[in-house]
Amino acid sequence: MKPNGALVLFSGGLDSTTCLYYALQKHKKVVVVSFDYSQRHKIEIRKAKKISSLLKIPHQIVKINPAIFRNTSLVNKEIKVPKNFSSTQKIPNTYVPGRNILFLSYATSIAEGLGLNEIYIGVNALDYSGYPDCRPEFIKAFQNVISIGTKSGDEKHTIKIQTPLLHLSKKEIVLLGQKLKVPFHKTHSCYDPIRGKACGKCDSCLLRKKGFEDAGVLDK
Amino acid sequence: MKPNGALVLFSGGLDSTTCLYYALQKHKKVVVVSFDYSQRHKIEIRKAKKISSLLKIPHQIVKINPAIFRNTSLVNKEIKVPKNFSSTQKIPNTYVPGRNILFLSYATSIAEGLGLNEIYIGVNALDYSGYPDCRPEFIKAFQNVISIGTKSGDEKHTIKIQTPLLHLSKKEIVLLGQKLKVPFHKTHSCYDPIRGKACGKCDSCLLRKKGFEDAGVLDK
Repeated sequence: MKPNGALVLFSGGLDSTTCLYYALQKHKKVVVVSFDYSQRHKIEIRKAKKISSLLKIPHQIVKINPAIFRNTSLVNKEIKVPKNFSSTQKIPNTYVPGRNILFLSYATSIAEGLGLNEIYIGVNALDYSGYPDCRPEFIKAFQNVISIGTKSGDEKHTIKIQTPLLHLSKKEIVLLGQKLKVPFHKTHSCYDPIRGKACGKCDSCLLRKKGFEDAGVLDK
Repeated sequence: MKPNGALVLFSGGLDSTTCLYYALQKHKKVVVVSFDYSQRHKIEIRKAKKISSLLKIPHQIVKINPAIFRNTSLVNKEIKVPKNFSSTQKIPNTYVPGRNILFLSYATSIAEGLGLNEIYIGVNALDYSGYPDCRPEFIKAFQNVISIGTKSGDEKHTIKIQTPLLHLSKKEIVLLGQKLKVPFHKTHSCYDPIRGKACGKCDSCLLRKKGFEDAGVLDK
């Protein structure tokens, strides 16, 4: 049987939720996957679960031993998440070594096993934190790995990585989300929440804030 | 600090053990990683642990939920491991969807986190089962992902994948192992062991047997 359907990498944030709603427009069969690596903002998984159960779509949570990811403020609570960090050439300490490589790898195995032909990932290379694993060249390189390194690729029905947000600004993502009726108030973006509330000052909060302001949309 | 040292993907089989002994010739700092995905031949992990403790090197065991890998006889015990399978163009059912992609991804995150600059993997593209994720093109594609998608790649000290066995025949691997004093009797290759004993008929057993015979070395 020819593979059909989409697997969406879903963190419960603004970008991946918009990406999920986008995939739902294109595919009847959609499965989502989230990763629990004891991230500082683990609350995102709870948010993600609420959205997937609202949408009644299968949701797989993959546990990753947090010891795999060292030297990142998103896991190691002894490293502070930078606040009011202005985008420079330097990769911030919120970078998680090889995270999207690992996430896309899991997605590849799951999608191939379930016979799904597309993987959606909400990476964005405009209003982002400069992570190397969010760039178009990275996605292209990983696509090549799937094409060459899997049975489905060998049989000429390669799983395709879809990145609908890759070249959108945060403003455009908010406008797309609004059009797709994304429940923004159920999404979570903050890296460093305090008792479940967004800090308002980390990179992720600032990018989100700017996006909503530029789009003229109220972020509840 | 410049990254230094090697991470070896280590299953406890003939190839990865030879690869480990090879890496030990090149690096002072060596760490090994094995994967527990409830594989049919999970005994390989016990064998691997014995070898790493003999060598006194740090050994990380990564657990992967076996539900990730579907439609493979190496995990699903309802699918039979093919016996006396003669190599054809077709990929056998022992293929595990995206396995080396996932293993190399874990290796990338661990190596980058620990500051290691090389990843050793004992893939072999001559006497092998035709898996797409063992071919030279695949390794090259994954190397590209590491170069583009990691911070270390961005900072021009990319982690390098080393494949010392890639172009060796099984005979040559056995001869290399002999030279490096690999304790062959402590390694495990069989996909379908019966009470810890090799079946002698699966692809992996047949390839091993042929290698030892061609090399004129006794496999205890």
